[in-house]
Amino acid sequence: MAFEYSRRSHFYETDLMGIVHHSNYLRFLEEARVAWLRERKIDHLHGPDAGCYFAVLSTEVKHLKPVYFEEVFKVELETRLEGVVMTFQYRLTTSRYTEPCLVAKTTHVPVNNEMKVLKLNKNIREVFKREKWTETWL
Amino acid sequence: MAFEYSRRSHFYETDLMGIVHHSNYLRFLEEARVAWLRERKIDHLHGPDAGCYFAVLSTEVKHLKPVYFEEVFKVELETRLEGVVMTFQYRLTTSRYTEPCLVAKTTHVPVNNEMKVLKLNKNIREVFKREKWTETWL
Amino acid sequence: MAFEYSRRSHFYETDLMGIVHHSNYLRFLEEARVAWLRERKIDHLHGPDAGCYFAVLSTEVKHLKPVYFEEVFKVELETRLEGVVMTFQYRLTTSRYTEPCLVAKTTHVPVNNEMKVLKLNKNIREVFKREKWTETWL
Amino acid sequence: MAFEYSRRSHFYETDLMGIVHHSNYLRFLEEARVAWLRERKIDHLHGPDAGCYFAVLSTEVKHLKPVYFEEVFKVELETRLEGVVMTFQYRLTTSRYTEPCLVAKTTHVPVNNEMKVLKLNKNIREVFKREKWTETWL
Repeated sequence: MAFEYSRRSHFYETDLMGIVHHSNYLRFLEEARVAWLRERKIDHLHGPDAGCYFAVLSTEVKHLKPVYFEEVFKVELETRLEGVVMTFQYRLTTSRYTEPCLVAKTTHVPVNNEMKVLKLNKNIREVFKREKWTETWL
Repeated sequence: MAFEYSRRSHFYETDLMGIVHHSNYLRFLEEARVAWLRERKIDHLHGPDAGCYFAVLSTEVKHLKPVYFEEVFKVELETRLEGVVMTFQYRLTTSRYTEPCLVAKTTHVPVNNEMKVLKLNKNIREVFKREKWTETWL
Repeated sequence: MAFEYSRRSHFYETDLMGIVHHSNYLRFLEEARVAWLRERKIDHLHGPDAGCYFAVLSTEVKHLKPVYFEEVFKVELETRLEGVVMTFQYRLTTSRYTEPCLVAKTTHVPVNNEMKVLKLNKNIREVFKREKWTETWL
Repeated sequence: MAFEYSRRSHFYETDLMGIVHHSNYLRFLEEARVAWLRERKIDHLHGPDAGCYFAVLSTEVKHLKPVYFEEVFKVELETRLEGVVMTFQYRLTTSRYTEPCLVAKTTHVPVNNEMKVLKLNKNIREVFKREKWTETWL
């Protein structure tokens, strides 16, 4: 089952078109990834204390519909591990439209403070084994 | 010849890894697009006064190297028009690395305030005809 | 009783010092104001649909302690109305320190889309009458 | 003579009111401070390589007029040193209004990576001695 993350959009995330600025969606996706780590109880293996970061290799976003000020949006997230590369896919929806507002994919590798690629922690690998990738959304 | 846009990265654009946060690159690319419009003297045909916006359909970014605080980065930009869809490609470099820090592609359509797709202004179309797309970078 | 708003800080809100960048606190305060409007059931009288915005006249922030990545912070908010000027004060705390991380004050006037000052909606005025301003925090 | 910093506002810096979001001005002021350090040739004594940061103690901003998309704004900056506390004042103007859009004041202390207050570097102190504080703007 896909992990879900949800919150309202903020005033400062809109632009003069009256909708959420496209750069902010990458931030929403990051929030969803960190919330997923927390829900899977591996957030302590990530960040400055752990000396491990999920460096972004690539991002791919397809925008279908806008998100407006103060709207609740929901991000569905799925993930899989291939070697050391973590791939996440996302589908962002609001109650305004039946179709998603956005589908996206990001890839990551674990790195240390000096941007050297790390072996992924065993506990994190175990979590990835239990994740499901139903179908490709993008 | 590719259009070029350049500036320094700002302190507030870095994150706790000490490098520019990946979401900010989409902002740099937007700055480059607007600077291109201005250099091509069609910036007045875009924005609230013109009632025309280049809505983002998709973005695709490949990250190769980080950009650090206060580093000068350069964005090369090329663009082409197919029907009403404007495609831009970008290559971002700094003096620190020989390879690019980032290559990216974004697609856009002209829309009005209500997000309705517009016919592209004739002057803008003329500008696109003179642009060169050398090869695909991403 | 002061209204309270709480959430975690995000990765993209940190800077290369490893702490939340100071500009983001103004965004947290805005989130707290909007959450207060929602809790008081007057959020529909604010924003693009209502044609009324709380333009920022001034901000004043005193920083005492930093907020780190993924920390839960709490914003206490109090407010009062004098004429058409709405004053909000804020105290931001985390569990890491006994003293607040930040105390702040912002002032606002209701304006329309053209930045003309509006008479404040009667329902909003009624809400302000029931608010308490215990003492000045800043 | 006051130091001056200037650039255009960006699309992503606007909000749904069609003007620059108030939190972004703190970022413009930071840009102006860093540009001042660079112009005074002491930027290398600041940042991760120097292990010295100008932590923000307080900010105070008075907003008088908005800045719109793609407008050129100019930030005038003056500064003075009292003990270890650096005070900066700013006046932000555009060609649209005769009065300033914003006047502001920020205070800072030099700290290291662990947020410990440092003795200010001698070269930086020398620079401060030559700065003029004409009158208080805020």
